[in-house]
Amino acid sequence: MATLQDIGLSAAINIISALIFLVAFAILRLQPFNDRVYFPKWYLKGLRHSPTHSGAFVTKFVNVDWRAYIRFLNWIPDALKMPEPELIDHAGLDSAVYLRIYLLGLKIFVPITLLAWAILVPVNWTNSTLAKSNFTYSDIDKLSISNIPLGSLRFWTHIVMAYAFTFWTCYVLQTEYAKVAAMRLQFVASEKRRPDQYTVLVRNVPPDADESVSECVEHFFLVNHQDHYLMHQGVYDANKLAKLVKEKKGKQNWLDYYQLKYSRNQSKRPMMKTGFLGCFGEKVDAIDHQTAEIERLSEEIAEEIQRVRKDPKSIMPAAFVSFKTRWGAAVCAQTQQSRNPTMWLTEWAPEPRDVFWNNLAIPYVSLTIRRLIIAVVFFFLTFFFMIPIAFVQTLASIEGIRKRAPFLKVIIDEPFIKSFIQGFLPGIALKIFLIFLPTILMIMSKFEGWLSISALERKSASKYYIFTIVNVFLGNIIAGAAFEQLNAFLNQSANQIPKTIGVAVPMKASFFITYIMVDGWAGIAGEILRLKPLIFYHLKNFFLVKTEKDREEAMDPGSVGFNTGEPQIQLYFLLGLVYAVVTPFLLPFILVFFGLAYVVYRHQIINVYNQEYESAAAFWPDVHGRIIFALCFSQLSLLGLLSTKHAAQSAPFLIALPVLTISFHLFCKGRYEPAFTKYPIQEARMRDTLEQAREPNFNLKGYLQNAYVHPVFKGDDEDEDEDFMNKLETDSVIVPTKRHSRLNTPVPSKVSAGSSPSLPDAVIHEH
Amino acid sequence: MATLQDIGLSAAINIISALIFLVAFAILRLQPFNDRVYFPKWYLKGLRHSPTHSGAFVTKFVNVDWRAYIRFLNWIPDALKMPEPELIDHAGLDSAVYLRIYLLGLKIFVPITLLAWAILVPVNWTNSTLAKSNFTYSDIDKLSISNIPLGSLRFWTHIVMAYAFTFWTCYVLQTEYAKVAAMRLQFVASEKRRPDQYTVLVRNVPPDADESVSECVEHFFLVNHQDHYLMHQGVYDANKLAKLVKEKKGKQNWLDYYQLKYSRNQSKRPMMKTGFLGCFGEKVDAIDHQTAEIERLSEEIAEEIQRVRKDPKSIMPAAFVSFKTRWGAAVCAQTQQSRNPTMWLTEWAPEPRDVFWNNLAIPYVSLTIRRLIIAVVFFFLTFFFMIPIAFVQTLASIEGIRKRAPFLKVIIDEPFIKSFIQGFLPGIALKIFLIFLPTILMIMSKFEGWLSISALERKSASKYYIFTIVNVFLGNIIAGAAFEQLNAFLNQSANQIPKTIGVAVPMKASFFITYIMVDGWAGIAGEILRLKPLIFYHLKNFFLVKTEKDREEAMDPGSVGFNTGEPQIQLYFLLGLVYAVVTPFLLPFILVFFGLAYVVYRHQIINVYNQEYESAAAFWPDVHGRIIFALCFSQLSLLGLLSTKHAAQSAPFLIALPVLTISFHLFCKGRYEPAFTKYPIQEARMRDTLEQAREPNFNLKGYLQNAYVHPVFKGDDEDEDEDFMNKLETDSVIVPTKRHSRLNTPVPSKVSAGSSPSLPDAVIHEH
Repeated sequence: MATLQDIGLSAAINIISALIFLVAFAILRLQPFNDRVYFPKWYLKGLRHSPTHSGAFVTKFVNVDWRAYIRFLNWIPDALKMPEPELIDHAGLDSAVYLRIYLLGLKIFVPITLLAWAILVPVNWTNSTLAKSNFTYSDIDKLSISNIPLGSLRFWTHIVMAYAFTFWTCYVLQTEYAKVAAMRLQFVASEKRRPDQYTVLVRNVPPDADESVSECVEHFFLVNHQDHYLMHQGVYDANKLAKLVKEKKGKQNWLDYYQLKYSRNQSKRPMMKTGFLGCFGEKVDAIDHQTAEIERLSEEIAEEIQRVRKDPKSIMPAAFVSFKTRWGAAVCAQTQQSRNPTMWLTEWAPEPRDVFWNNLAIPYVSLTIRRLIIAVVFFFLTFFFMIPIAFVQTLASIEGIRKRAPFLKVIIDEPFIKSFIQGFLPGIALKIFLIFLPTILMIMSKFEGWLSISALERKSASKYYIFTIVNVFLGNIIAGAAFEQLNAFLNQSANQIPKTIGVAVPMKASFFITYIMVDGWAGIAGEILRLKPLIFYHLKNFFLVKTEKDREEAMDPGSVGFNTGEPQIQLYFLLGLVYAVVTPFLLPFILVFFGLAYVVYRHQIINVYNQEYESAAAFWPDVHGRIIFALCFSQLSLLGLLSTKHAAQSAPFLIALPVLTISFHLFCKGRYEPAFTKYPIQEARMRDTLEQAREPNFNLKGYLQNAYVHPVFKGDDEDEDEDFMNKLETDSVIVPTKRHSRLNTPVPSKVSAGSSPSLPDAVIHEH
Repeated sequence: MATLQDIGLSAAINIISALIFLVAFAILRLQPFNDRVYFPKWYLKGLRHSPTHSGAFVTKFVNVDWRAYIRFLNWIPDALKMPEPELIDHAGLDSAVYLRIYLLGLKIFVPITLLAWAILVPVNWTNSTLAKSNFTYSDIDKLSISNIPLGSLRFWTHIVMAYAFTFWTCYVLQTEYAKVAAMRLQFVASEKRRPDQYTVLVRNVPPDADESVSECVEHFFLVNHQDHYLMHQGVYDANKLAKLVKEKKGKQNWLDYYQLKYSRNQSKRPMMKTGFLGCFGEKVDAIDHQTAEIERLSEEIAEEIQRVRKDPKSIMPAAFVSFKTRWGAAVCAQTQQSRNPTMWLTEWAPEPRDVFWNNLAIPYVSLTIRRLIIAVVFFFLTFFFMIPIAFVQTLASIEGIRKRAPFLKVIIDEPFIKSFIQGFLPGIALKIFLIFLPTILMIMSKFEGWLSISALERKSASKYYIFTIVNVFLGNIIAGAAFEQLNAFLNQSANQIPKTIGVAVPMKASFFITYIMVDGWAGIAGEILRLKPLIFYHLKNFFLVKTEKDREEAMDPGSVGFNTGEPQIQLYFLLGLVYAVVTPFLLPFILVFFGLAYVVYRHQIINVYNQEYESAAAFWPDVHGRIIFALCFSQLSLLGLLSTKHAAQSAPFLIALPVLTISFHLFCKGRYEPAFTKYPIQEARMRDTLEQAREPNFNLKGYLQNAYVHPVFKGDDEDEDEDFMNKLETDSVIVPTKRHSRLNTPVPSKVSAGSSPSLPDAVIHEH
């Protein structure tokens, strides 16, 4: 068990490394040649330009103004200065609300810390149970609940505190939920016109023998929402096309690289090998080869576009249906359309940027099966991932290699390689796994069939959270791999489990304090340095960048990364709530984490990250739910701990806490969650009326025309694709009608014969 | 452990008593003077009249036609003859679908029984484990899984059978769910016009300083559903009025009784005492007293009506809002209206008969608290109800009385009273509790705030089911009171619990066989005899009935009683599924129950029960969910049993079963449940279009005018109340407008100044 001195040393090391990161950042960010690494957001917004236009050559790359270095910590007040409404405007609601999670941590834990240090620490300290006992103990333990003698009446202080902390946390949570819900509604309402406000995503359009998907959709909505239907956009299966376009872009990058190389050194044409990774195969002239490849791909893309256009199989049974009013869209998104609830599934269309196109065509039954499969896979991943990794580790050991590959014996007996294998290889399997874990979880979420990137990130975050709880939190509290825990828990009785956890919790306090400093403090400080984007930017800048536009593309602003960031924060909420009553000594460390992370992420969100989509804080119910889980977990572990302290009479008081907490959660769920899943009719009507009054002649159809076209069709630089769009639109006037049946259209269609609805080939259909 | 002979004897006794009931029924039903007890449904439908119009005096009361007695079992084919569509027409969809639960039992268990007897029984029988062991065993055990030696490969048969039974059950469940969902949609669509198709119940109308509730509702819907809103009906707090009316009716009954008594014996005016239960107090002339009382109550009722009319507090913040089309109502019921999801709550209005008026005004926050309270109370009721009862039982014992009331010593030492107390009193507390249990559960459900009688019955059924599982099923498997079980389960590990249950299951087979015969066979046969209504009818007929109408009221047709009946059936599903693999010998007994109950209930539904409401089979998701629970329970108990049989290698195969079953359940939930909670837009539009074509000039407003008026206001025989209605309607034209603000009405109201919307006193407002 760590003593105060150990912790102090560890704190010093971590504070120093964090400070080094911060100082390095403060210096690097002042250098003009790093400007695009540390302020990409402003470039993307068009508010900042490359500092190469004037001045001496040196000042283009290095900041020689010594006064700037004096103010090197100015970024902190700068980051805090921007008011929240401006922040929402600048970076979107998602980012602004994401910052509120850190703020929520401060709001919850500052009063809890003060109260715990004012009351619990003295109560714990003024005992001498540990001093009298024969156990070795540290000074931290003297501040913790372990120092209270068995059956002492002082435990009532802890119970009262548990109540106080629960009520305070619930109060803050409720205020925050109300605030975020109001912000979301405000954002959705006051935000200027957006395509998703008028649009509903329809899936599982039933196949019809007589009509194309597009006709079918049009007829259905003309009949069932006749006063409100405006138009719809079909969904094409452009996955292969997207792949080809991406491949072409890669080749284009290589071509740029070779051309740049050639222009710098005109004496020699650059050569390359055509085989695997450019290491094997025939040697050819690189520029010619890449040009030929790009031409080949251009042709393939043109062919693929033809195929997508002609092949009815490439039209997916889904569509984006737009309505004349927000009211019409709100009604359609919230109601069940068809007798068969697995057909004509409607839901709010995600923002165009947020759509995950690949999943739009998954049928309903398949979704159930996919989710079942992923649930089983995820269960095994969480509890048994250590088994293959342990296997790889034995393979990667000296003995393992010697046994299985005796011919390598000569090499591995080299002292350097030997020490490398012994020191590095065994751990590397686990590290690689943990690096790829978010990607694996994202792939699993994609397989489950969620429709928007924001939903994918939310689902990945849930999985990552569970994985973290089991393998980081419980894995350290109950030492041992997850499947051993699982076995232990299965073999323990229901009232033994909280005891096992509760007893282990105070003993692991010093471990988690160190963890907070390494992962929380130093990790957050490392985040602001952006080492990886810094290196990649300069590499790209050197090898690929020819034009200003290329430089723009070389920037990698990244985004908040909800799927990994939020579960990390949640771990700190869990630690804080679990240790608040047990070992209040840990709380200040949590506070430093939340404070530092808030400043750092606020800076990053303002200056760096470029959020790829806007879900209007759709993740808040998840955040809220996980904090509630942490609260219940902390209550149960305290119950378990106290029941081993001969304070059994307190159990009924503690068992009431989770019951109250869960019913508080149910209340919040009913009261606030609908704001995140539904769009109130009243709000929609109010906006419609206002807009009607302000812009009575707005051309909504023109506005929505190309909103939900697959991005591959409206790529900024792909001229063929623009051609494709034009072609489709032109064709739609020429191709004759192919509709055979009007059986499903009792109400006469109000569109004239020549216009798009009768044209199955058109991407966009209007009414 | 019971032997085959014991079971045979018990079966004989129960079959004989069931036969006695059936024969008694067959004879009694043929007597004309019992006609209204055994065929009330036909009287209520107006298809049958009292057989007193012609013939000899004797034939009015006794059937002397001997041929009728020969065909005394004819009711069985008669009951089965009516085809289902006619049955739906005759008794409603609820009753028809309720019968399908019994049919579902037959569909599931007939093939399972055949398969089990063809395969499992021979596999079990051809072992001699029990014969070799020293345990005492019965012949039944030789047919059960207990006869297989430990670790035998024969257990694979049971595993395969478990899979077969699960797949068959799921298949039947899915077919049935699909069928019932289709029946419901068919019923809702093809049913002739009903008020609830156009009406939405709005609750939690926010208070407004300037407007009455009624104005507020009108303005809100005029703005937010302007093209569809038709009219609305306010909800009055008429609970006190209803109580007074009920009291008056009671006095009227007494008056009738005394008048009848007087007319039979004119020599003496009947007298009565005014005190408690008519046993104490002053003696007065009964007819005069009751007449005076009735007059007093009539006055009070008139006053109360005035109060309800004038007092704004008696107008509840709820309303029934009707729309011009089914489409409008479907949209409003399925969407969220207001920014605050706890205000303007909309849901489908229950059928007018089905509304539970008392609960319409409960605010949202209160609902959460009420449900929390009931959850806690129900938990204690289920697990700890034995404690107060045991306490009463000790009080009611000889020793208890002697100790606490020594003055009663003389009495209780009388041999007769002593034996009465010893034999009867201790059990009576439990019996009284069990008789009142459904009432207690119904009161709890009412307190929870459900809005329709059908919902109340569903919620009570859920509670009763849980109570039955814990106290009847588990209580008999793991001997001991519920709180002892709870303690045992808390102290056992998660993988020990299925073992404990699994091992106990086969040992209790003979007990449950007896239980099925007593509760199932004889109980069902007793149901058809209707002893209680028979006695009550004749008592009322003798003391109260003066006119044909009184006789009509003296009938007590009763109804299916979903809240007690369905949990009972579910117990048999649970028993059948749990014992299917373990002790197939039990299955035929279950089959007899389902068959007998199906015939009996079909007869009762056709001839007796008068369903008070129609929820269009809204209970089916509950039925389905509980069978799924039974299935999972049976799989886990089999897993537990096999893991004690040294057949551990089979565990992975069995653990997959509940996972598959639950994911099947999730699939069904998504696929079929929406049919029970939502009304598809397509369907609504189709019906609207059809109706528009058929009856373009139908006066919908007139049709809906009085549909949702509190029943106390439209009582058939209450002339004052009709006056009240007239008064309200007349007044609404005279009283001048009281509206102060139009702030909430951006769109100009289309109603003329003099008509109802500006009149806060009107019950019905139209647009």
